[in-house]
Amino acid sequence: MEHITELLRQYRQGHGLPAEFYTSKEVFRYDIEQVFKKTWIYVGVVSEFKKKGEFRVVQVDNNSIILVRGEQDEVRAFHNSCRHRGAQICVTDKGRVPNLVCPYHQWTYNLNGDLIYAGRMGENFSCKGNGLKPVAIASVAGLLFINLADDPCYADMDKMKADLEPYVRFYQLDKLKVVKEIDLIEKANWKLVVENNRECYHCGANHPELLNSWPPYGAGFGWPDDPREAAAVARQIDEAYAKKRPQWDRLGMTHEPLDLTADRWYRAMMMILEKGALSQTVNGELACRKLLPGFSEPDNSDLSMWTHFNSWHHFLCDHVVTTMAIPLSEDRTLVRTRWLVHEDAQEGTDYDLETLIHVWVQTNDQDKWLAEISQAGIRSDAYRPGPYSEETEGLVMNFIDWYVKQLQSGR
Amino acid sequence: MEHITELLRQYRQGHGLPAEFYTSKEVFRYDIEQVFKKTWIYVGVVSEFKKKGEFRVVQVDNNSIILVRGEQDEVRAFHNSCRHRGAQICVTDKGRVPNLVCPYHQWTYNLNGDLIYAGRMGENFSCKGNGLKPVAIASVAGLLFINLADDPCYADMDKMKADLEPYVRFYQLDKLKVVKEIDLIEKANWKLVVENNRECYHCGANHPELLNSWPPYGAGFGWPDDPREAAAVARQIDEAYAKKRPQWDRLGMTHEPLDLTADRWYRAMMMILEKGALSQTVNGELACRKLLPGFSEPDNSDLSMWTHFNSWHHFLCDHVVTTMAIPLSEDRTLVRTRWLVHEDAQEGTDYDLETLIHVWVQTNDQDKWLAEISQAGIRSDAYRPGPYSEETEGLVMNFIDWYVKQLQSGR
Amino acid sequence: MEHITELLRQYRQGHGLPAEFYTSKEVFRYDIEQVFKKTWIYVGVVSEFKKKGEFRVVQVDNNSIILVRGEQDEVRAFHNSCRHRGAQICVTDKGRVPNLVCPYHQWTYNLNGDLIYAGRMGENFSCKGNGLKPVAIASVAGLLFINLADDPCYADMDKMKADLEPYVRFYQLDKLKVVKEIDLIEKANWKLVVENNRECYHCGANHPELLNSWPPYGAGFGWPDDPREAAAVARQIDEAYAKKRPQWDRLGMTHEPLDLTADRWYRAMMMILEKGALSQTVNGELACRKLLPGFSEPDNSDLSMWTHFNSWHHFLCDHVVTTMAIPLSEDRTLVRTRWLVHEDAQEGTDYDLETLIHVWVQTNDQDKWLAEISQAGIRSDAYRPGPYSEETEGLVMNFIDWYVKQLQSGR
Repeated sequence: MEHITELLRQYRQGHGLPAEFYTSKEVFRYDIEQVFKKTWIYVGVVSEFKKKGEFRVVQVDNNSIILVRGEQDEVRAFHNSCRHRGAQICVTDKGRVPNLVCPYHQWTYNLNGDLIYAGRMGENFSCKGNGLKPVAIASVAGLLFINLADDPCYADMDKMKADLEPYVRFYQLDKLKVVKEIDLIEKANWKLVVENNRECYHCGANHPELLNSWPPYGAGFGWPDDPREAAAVARQIDEAYAKKRPQWDRLGMTHEPLDLTADRWYRAMMMILEKGALSQTVNGELACRKLLPGFSEPDNSDLSMWTHFNSWHHFLCDHVVTTMAIPLSEDRTLVRTRWLVHEDAQEGTDYDLETLIHVWVQTNDQDKWLAEISQAGIRSDAYRPGPYSEETEGLVMNFIDWYVKQLQSGR
Repeated sequence: MEHITELLRQYRQGHGLPAEFYTSKEVFRYDIEQVFKKTWIYVGVVSEFKKKGEFRVVQVDNNSIILVRGEQDEVRAFHNSCRHRGAQICVTDKGRVPNLVCPYHQWTYNLNGDLIYAGRMGENFSCKGNGLKPVAIASVAGLLFINLADDPCYADMDKMKADLEPYVRFYQLDKLKVVKEIDLIEKANWKLVVENNRECYHCGANHPELLNSWPPYGAGFGWPDDPREAAAVARQIDEAYAKKRPQWDRLGMTHEPLDLTADRWYRAMMMILEKGALSQTVNGELACRKLLPGFSEPDNSDLSMWTHFNSWHHFLCDHVVTTMAIPLSEDRTLVRTRWLVHEDAQEGTDYDLETLIHVWVQTNDQDKWLAEISQAGIRSDAYRPGPYSEETEGLVMNFIDWYVKQLQSGR
Repeated sequence: MEHITELLRQYRQGHGLPAEFYTSKEVFRYDIEQVFKKTWIYVGVVSEFKKKGEFRVVQVDNNSIILVRGEQDEVRAFHNSCRHRGAQICVTDKGRVPNLVCPYHQWTYNLNGDLIYAGRMGENFSCKGNGLKPVAIASVAGLLFINLADDPCYADMDKMKADLEPYVRFYQLDKLKVVKEIDLIEKANWKLVVENNRECYHCGANHPELLNSWPPYGAGFGWPDDPREAAAVARQIDEAYAKKRPQWDRLGMTHEPLDLTADRWYRAMMMILEKGALSQTVNGELACRKLLPGFSEPDNSDLSMWTHFNSWHHFLCDHVVTTMAIPLSEDRTLVRTRWLVHEDAQEGTDYDLETLIHVWVQTNDQDKWLAEISQAGIRSDAYRPGPYSEETEGLVMNFIDWYVKQLQSGR
């Protein structure tokens, strides 16, 4: 702890973090306690839980968590550990069950987590008080967040729902289905994974597929060097948005930029795809002919949204790509990406799976490699926190500031 | 140490151990020192050492131990580390040698561990005092136990021999041969492996193959819920035993139950196989037509025996299954099982190997999985030591009590 | 640190080191700091850097080091970590580049390590002061050594160059090429790898291929037991050398033995191959018909050279074998061996690759195994530092003394 305090003192705003924040096991433990066991973290999407009893298991550090559609249609979360001898109850990653039955000695819990059967325990034993330990869970218009704190801050979640639900609700996640899920295990500290996600300074040289539909200028990219050219570009962007906003209004979409503030750790930007693209595909064509429920015709928008500290999302007119990052150790991070389309869309007819996922499969692999060469280089005795580019790395700085505050507050 | 004392204080009898006993490296080190380097642990069976110079190597924590049939027909044990520069002398798991020769510089030890040759060491060097370091070893009618303590407690072993040899001697292990040996590395703390072995509360739902010949009622299983039915079952069991005992007496078998006491950390129960089974096979038929030396005709008995803290054994009329558990780390355990038949039995003619091993291969795999889901679940922040079933988990409680005492005593 | 001081106190000259020097992570960290980050360590050979911009990456503990042929024909060394966000710049093991460009955000360094381009960093940013961090590097007639200390001892290197260059220069390493490189990862502490290299007590029983051309007597092997026979052998050796020396003088080779002294941690011995061998091949024939530049006809010499703490080399008339050892952890060591021939030699015509490398491939594999069984045996509670043979293990003792002094001095 004293060591971490000392490390925090070494941090200079506008520069990267000292190496140990990326390499030390002690800092990693502190990150888990102060960030991942204190804040609302993104773990999944309601589209996976269509029927009562459908469950997924998600691992956060030492905790295995069951997410399951409960008796009253809501998704609930429980610690995956039997109250008898601790065994895991759900032993597959996903499935559907009428009750949660421990495979070891058949202790049986209903979908509310209540213990309803335990054999041979004698007359003095009561099922009461032996239910599964619940985990706080909240849905932001279908995006599922859990909070592992003993006393989760519900005010934070209420604010987040109020802020983000207007944007997300339009996409009706409960009417979509997940058609692909890919896990990457990146050999990098989770913060390098997030930092990479917070700037596009690296995009030009590293993400050819993504750039087929992505705007070449703006915060994450920077601007043309020539100030007159930069002004012209800014004017073009303004004009494009002025033209789009009435269309978005007609559709009922919320589209005003929602930016970071001192107490807002998430962000939503409605973007316009470039080069005539209608979706994030290599050729810019639609990835799925069956549009999302809110759209009657193609729209070249991308609702780009993310939360500190572990998620980012793209909502297109024909599909959604949603990603979570979960730290595994000081130098390994799980990055899980899901692709969603309209629940009625048919593979082969409405969409080709490879086409649908191609851009983000490539982009994620490219980012994985960048995070990994960063991790490897930061281990060096020669590493010293370098200066950020104010023009293109402002959101990285913001993330780092936020993280440092989170550690300092011990909130 | 203080931390372990504190953990021991948290233990509540009748409940599982606090999580750290299964997950902490510190407790694991203490387990090794207080249990596996202090007590007599089971490591093998005399049937593997028929000829002078036949050896096996067994690894216990950092110690590689050579077991070898010595000059006078007894199995001896030595640390597998040359007195010159420390190299391992036996580098294969098993074999037969006239002397123990270090591969590095050919220092040569006889089968008593005396150094008898060392080249180029000069005139001042003496072989005396440079013999291999011996390890205490004892045979319980052919079951081999070693003790790594500086001052092994021979009184413990004398008592164990006096208690158990009457049961085991009948099976004449020196006239049997090992026909199969299988190692499992279970991703679970060794205590979870032992706990699993000490109850049959889990058997009904998890061990279909074993239950083809195993009694469905009794200590490890519990009894029918209806008290009248339970009384009837108990009566049937009593009658069956009353009928068997004279047969066992005629054969010269020791068959009185030998139960745990305050200073007896092993147990022997003569059981009667169920459903007409003559052996622990899927269909209940004999696994080997050539019966063990003591039997002239098939007998539906199973001498079920185990020792705290690392072995369990089944002696049938036609074969023996013997298992040892050796901890590898706080969350990995080696479980080695051997199957033995009469040394004159012929594969293909007298026994089919797959049939012989099937029930315990399946049972061990099933138990491995149960131990592993326990280990995974106990890591959870939500784990708390649950209550044991007095009816079916009494022997688990006993094991845990014993273990706690062993750690407390620091014996 | 106190613990290491205590361990150092336990060391008794003439005996091996206490076990923890080979097994403890704490000692390993101290080895890295006191040995591998303080002394000149061998990392490569100039023959790999023929053209400007050719680079290799070598990993020493947490440091990735770029070796690259710079603007002025000299090989330079830099830490492989970008000054922006720390990413590794060279991400392949070898290659050729005009500049060193970070793949992440294209910060660009010239071959002197100066930052010459960084995009979007704003007007206040200066490339000055943001160059790659250099690493001290020196060439001993083409053998490349780096020093990771903050204040490398150049006097040590000057002395080493003065001592060794007369021997090595003759072989004109810049006119040779590397035709094979093999990495072994030995599961042994680096000191066991070096100790193994410092004696031939083990050669007779373990290195049949090497012994086809290697002298059977001398320091590393010891002498015949019979003193008269030993005297005769010594006389024969003296005569052979008396006959060879004029030939070597005529060729211009330096051949006087350069032995260890109190402040010389390297050694060069000109040896005469045995059994009529002209090179270190299985049948003693030349491995390469195109001789090294200094030779006009075959010569049965072997310049055997090594440095504390991480290299050994054999210079034959037709090829060179050069090996470096780099510790990876307390029980793993990288051993990288390179084979070099005349840069004009043609595979198939002048040499057969398998024939060229066979003897040292076999010898290295044999030594790997010996180091590994030593590591495994030293872990045992029974290990105690054994006595060395003064006749054959003097150089091992010398290495150990040196190492202990290096740790004591904390130089």
